[in-house]
Amino acid sequence: MKPIEGRRRVIVEGIQPQIDGGRYPAKRTVGDNVTVTAAIFSDGHDHVAARLLYSHASDTTWGTARFTELPNDMWAATFPVDRLGTWRFKIEAWVDHFDTWSSDLVKRLGAQPDPTNPSANAVPQDIPLALRIGANLLDAAGDRARGADAAQLKAAATDLCTLAEQNLPYYAGYPVSDEIISLADSYPDLRFAARSDRELEIWVDRERARYSNWYELFPRSAANVEGVHGTFKDVEKRLPAIAAMGFQIVYMPPIHPIGRSYRKGKNNSVSALDGDVGSPWAIGAAEGGHTALLPELGTFADFDLLVAAAQTHGMELALDVAFQCAPEHPWVKEHPDWFIIRPDGSIQYAENPPKKYQDIYPLNFESPDWRNLWEALYGVFKFWVDRGVRVFRVDNPHTKALPFWEWCLAEVRKSAPETLFLAEAFTRPHVMYSLAKGGYTQGYTYFTWRTGKAELEAYFTEINNAPVADFFRPNVWPNTPDILHAQFQVEDLAERRAIFQQRVILAATLSGNYGIYGPAYELLEGRPGPTMPGKSGSEEYLDSEKYQLRTWDFDAPYSIAPLITQLNAIRAAHPALQANANTRFHTVANDQLIVYSKSTAPELPSDQLGAKGQAALAAAAKADTILTVVNLDPKNTQSGIVNLWMPSLGLPWEDSFEVEDLLTGARYRWNGQYNYVSLNPALPAHVFRIVR
Amino acid sequence: MKPIEGRRRVIVEGIQPQIDGGRYPAKRTVGDNVTVTAAIFSDGHDHVAARLLYSHASDTTWGTARFTELPNDMWAATFPVDRLGTWRFKIEAWVDHFDTWSSDLVKRLGAQPDPTNPSANAVPQDIPLALRIGANLLDAAGDRARGADAAQLKAAATDLCTLAEQNLPYYAGYPVSDEIISLADSYPDLRFAARSDRELEIWVDRERARYSNWYELFPRSAANVEGVHGTFKDVEKRLPAIAAMGFQIVYMPPIHPIGRSYRKGKNNSVSALDGDVGSPWAIGAAEGGHTALLPELGTFADFDLLVAAAQTHGMELALDVAFQCAPEHPWVKEHPDWFIIRPDGSIQYAENPPKKYQDIYPLNFESPDWRNLWEALYGVFKFWVDRGVRVFRVDNPHTKALPFWEWCLAEVRKSAPETLFLAEAFTRPHVMYSLAKGGYTQGYTYFTWRTGKAELEAYFTEINNAPVADFFRPNVWPNTPDILHAQFQVEDLAERRAIFQQRVILAATLSGNYGIYGPAYELLEGRPGPTMPGKSGSEEYLDSEKYQLRTWDFDAPYSIAPLITQLNAIRAAHPALQANANTRFHTVANDQLIVYSKSTAPELPSDQLGAKGQAALAAAAKADTILTVVNLDPKNTQSGIVNLWMPSLGLPWEDSFEVEDLLTGARYRWNGQYNYVSLNPALPAHVFRIVR
Repeated sequence: MKPIEGRRRVIVEGIQPQIDGGRYPAKRTVGDNVTVTAAIFSDGHDHVAARLLYSHASDTTWGTARFTELPNDMWAATFPVDRLGTWRFKIEAWVDHFDTWSSDLVKRLGAQPDPTNPSANAVPQDIPLALRIGANLLDAAGDRARGADAAQLKAAATDLCTLAEQNLPYYAGYPVSDEIISLADSYPDLRFAARSDRELEIWVDRERARYSNWYELFPRSAANVEGVHGTFKDVEKRLPAIAAMGFQIVYMPPIHPIGRSYRKGKNNSVSALDGDVGSPWAIGAAEGGHTALLPELGTFADFDLLVAAAQTHGMELALDVAFQCAPEHPWVKEHPDWFIIRPDGSIQYAENPPKKYQDIYPLNFESPDWRNLWEALYGVFKFWVDRGVRVFRVDNPHTKALPFWEWCLAEVRKSAPETLFLAEAFTRPHVMYSLAKGGYTQGYTYFTWRTGKAELEAYFTEINNAPVADFFRPNVWPNTPDILHAQFQVEDLAERRAIFQQRVILAATLSGNYGIYGPAYELLEGRPGPTMPGKSGSEEYLDSEKYQLRTWDFDAPYSIAPLITQLNAIRAAHPALQANANTRFHTVANDQLIVYSKSTAPELPSDQLGAKGQAALAAAAKADTILTVVNLDPKNTQSGIVNLWMPSLGLPWEDSFEVEDLLTGARYRWNGQYNYVSLNPALPAHVFRIVR
Repeated sequence: MKPIEGRRRVIVEGIQPQIDGGRYPAKRTVGDNVTVTAAIFSDGHDHVAARLLYSHASDTTWGTARFTELPNDMWAATFPVDRLGTWRFKIEAWVDHFDTWSSDLVKRLGAQPDPTNPSANAVPQDIPLALRIGANLLDAAGDRARGADAAQLKAAATDLCTLAEQNLPYYAGYPVSDEIISLADSYPDLRFAARSDRELEIWVDRERARYSNWYELFPRSAANVEGVHGTFKDVEKRLPAIAAMGFQIVYMPPIHPIGRSYRKGKNNSVSALDGDVGSPWAIGAAEGGHTALLPELGTFADFDLLVAAAQTHGMELALDVAFQCAPEHPWVKEHPDWFIIRPDGSIQYAENPPKKYQDIYPLNFESPDWRNLWEALYGVFKFWVDRGVRVFRVDNPHTKALPFWEWCLAEVRKSAPETLFLAEAFTRPHVMYSLAKGGYTQGYTYFTWRTGKAELEAYFTEINNAPVADFFRPNVWPNTPDILHAQFQVEDLAERRAIFQQRVILAATLSGNYGIYGPAYELLEGRPGPTMPGKSGSEEYLDSEKYQLRTWDFDAPYSIAPLITQLNAIRAAHPALQANANTRFHTVANDQLIVYSKSTAPELPSDQLGAKGQAALAAAAKADTILTVVNLDPKNTQSGIVNLWMPSLGLPWEDSFEVEDLLTGARYRWNGQYNYVSLNPALPAHVFRIVR
């Protein structure tokens, strides 16, 4: 079957950013310039032109941006996203007859025999005829234009006709002014313009989606007095210190009533003793469920004050949403059909056969009443959003139906588009990426288990580049209450301090989003819990706060809070560290040294002499560029010759340049790509600024 | 907005083969098994299952194939395509509760405390309850089944219930037979099955689309008598020799009346002399256009005899379709609006300013009468299809509107799906690939200009692998009437012969489809035509057949027809050379030696001990595998140690094996991956068969 209009000769394909053929939106943050690229081409030798049409979902009109040509039929256009929410874009492309004519005319004029300067390469040209063709094109542009523009184009057409009528033996000089060319260009002939197959979407978050420093704490430990249950008021007292360290988000594990049946005791013992506080993730008791507060923590008034106090300190509170129920959760009685009911009428607890987690009932996403279940779960977010919370860390989202998340997160964002969702999913890559595609703002990562140089390089190369970087934003955590990596389980204090320092430096310089579970982190908590039967080692903490109150010695001399404070200050001052674009690993012939740079400017082109190269050099001179070198060996000093990929630092290959170590203030003059570094575990990194 | 069914928990994404999100079909040939892969996963730990539904466009029912699991949430299923035309496929995937239950039960049985063999790792299990859950699942499968199957499933459910009621202290042995498991598996619960977003298509061609040997000749030179215009009858006489060389397709440049105005003379001189025969691509004269014959070649009766004679020799005829018109083409008068009319009323000839091609009028694909133009062009194909032609080489398709081709080729295939179209497009990659996506069966390539080892490896790696290989089928030509590469322009006969041999060996062993322009090729024609002004060298032939009659000395002792005959025989005997899948380049530390293998079996997995590895070894033992080594230096003997990537030869790393050189019959025993080769320009290649 023929198309409705067969004269649309331009093909538009391979549009980026585009996730799964447009099934999901790509992600950006407010203030970004979104660069759209596509292959745009037509048959034959005619020139093509294209424009991007873009629009915020709430707008009724479209903005436009012209595409510029890149090599090999690729084109790029950029548009600014200055508001939260969904943006749409599409492409129109057409054969640009005026531009083709214009470029051909230059060739014709150059080739016409010049009576005053005969040349064997000259080819007779019918210039008057070419001028009359151009006049027709300008006249048609005039028909499309309005007012003064129309008159100007029509006049230019007449001028060309007049010139044609003179029928000169030789036409010197290009007969159309730049102004007229530009004017004609602004009234393109779109009759046969091709349009991209479908509108593509960009979801635009606030800046905190891309750049955030998280601090996790157990509020019930905030009293910091042996045996005293902490409260929201105690957390409030901790806020100045957390803000002083430079954190922006204070995240608390669940704050709801905790179930009593099958409550876990200290160190995850099967049965709790009297006075054991239980796991905050066993949500729900007679006092209520996901929209109630654990009475020991305080009242809603206390909670509201805490939300406000965080704001006063320039921070915000993140809550933990864990969609699972303790046996006493009100939903269990009110909606038993939201759970799996076994043949004996009992409700199915969580299992990973043969292991049983009888304190937890998972929700059944195949419930016949799924619509009400979805509404109730959405209602939990809505409840806390209405109390001022805009950041949620979601527990194990990968054990809840993926289509549910896509609906639920979009529903929350309808009224609160600034809401951020961090997916606590440690599972297979496709599932983690699917959560991100379905709407999660950020995701936990495999960083915790990527400890060697090669695996760190491979992993961050994957997640910091398209296509993954267009939908998945890593939030890297050296530790969590569930994960004390074997690396940290070191008795020797100096070595332990070296590894804690190393990992937080990696986190803070490799990723725009990172977090720590404190005070365990800054105070170097490394004692592993009991090993589970059949496991080779434990990633649990001894005396884990998941099951008991803890106190902490904030004044310990070995605390790395000062380093963390410094790292967060460096992150605040350096936009290169607030995003993951333009990350580049550099080589060094020492497997214990890892070297990488981040920059606000893209890599220099190999040709730095042309106009584009000069512009790139000028942009690089204004760019923020951070070069980090980390010693991965917590025991020994490691040295090596770093081999820098200079274009990614915005530097010509042979350049001499200065670097300043932002951790020590030391400055070095480096010459060209090869430079010596040596790092001692006591301060296992350089975080260099390229001095411009 | 909630989905209609929120309980579809499985995600299906990244389906391959898929071209531009399903915009174009992927290509295969009759007899292929199409392997479809996709990422298929769900939330949580439940097992998933999936099936492929496939159907020929003319079928009303769907075949099914179950997916098997690959690592990392990837799945694969295969279906056979046994007929020409469009096939469709889609995927259904679901949570497999029975399989999850079954696998959990194994774990439960293994973990239950055994009174006769106490273990500290035992965990008490409610086996009877688990059995009752299984009984419910079998019962539900019985509800979905019919007849005897239903009864068998229901009986199995009852058995499980009976077993549960016994409430044994210990359950020994797995209580469900493999037969019941398999039966339950064949009645899956599809209520909440997810389905792939859209049906994807495969276009299935006949074998000749993938494996073809082309021979191009000018019929007007076929008389081979000085000054005598050849005829179809003369071509007929040449057929036995061409068939004897092993060619399958005989392709003739345009056979239509040739224009007289601005006719080109010998060696592309601007004006023809009396008796000059002109370029066959200047189509159309008083005698007719694209559906007429040049009277000098013969009548339609002669043409029909030639078509039949080719078939008698096991070959077929390919025609050249060049959609452009000489000034006398009947369309020019009948349909001036199919051309571009200039302001002076004249018709625009072909130009590439400042160059003019006044003997050619290009068609205007922006004609207001485009619908009739499209029909007329389609009518040209239809005319020749109706005369028995099923192979078309299309001249410069990239200068005609791409949407036209998509429509036109599909239209021809509606009644003649066996028709093959070869795109003669030497242009930018996106345009060449777009022609292929739009329906061209095969395309000319950059092979002609890829003469160095690195560029050959890079180019064939790109085109012989997905995604390109799913839509673009290379047809590689060492020469064409338009292209005599500088490499061939060598005076020294031995050196010239070496390079002609080298290039045809590369073509015949690197690509399932290849062709030569003869007799120029087998007779080593290497004399370049006059250099064009402003060009550094000519790729034209001296005394090119494009502009004049030629005679050839078929008995010349230097003819490489015997080598070509041998290559075509090797190709006929070795299916590995009849396709481009499983092509692998091997390393050798000599830039003048290039080494590559092709096999009918994919590379062995790294684990060759497991069941999959053993199956792969067994398949490799039956596979056809060809290893080619070519000396790219036409002047000197080149030697080196080849480093073979053994898995791609279907051989374990340390294997000792025999190779047979199919060009010489010599056999060698090789040990492991490192082996010495030395090649003399007189016969610059080994074409080894791996002896099994």
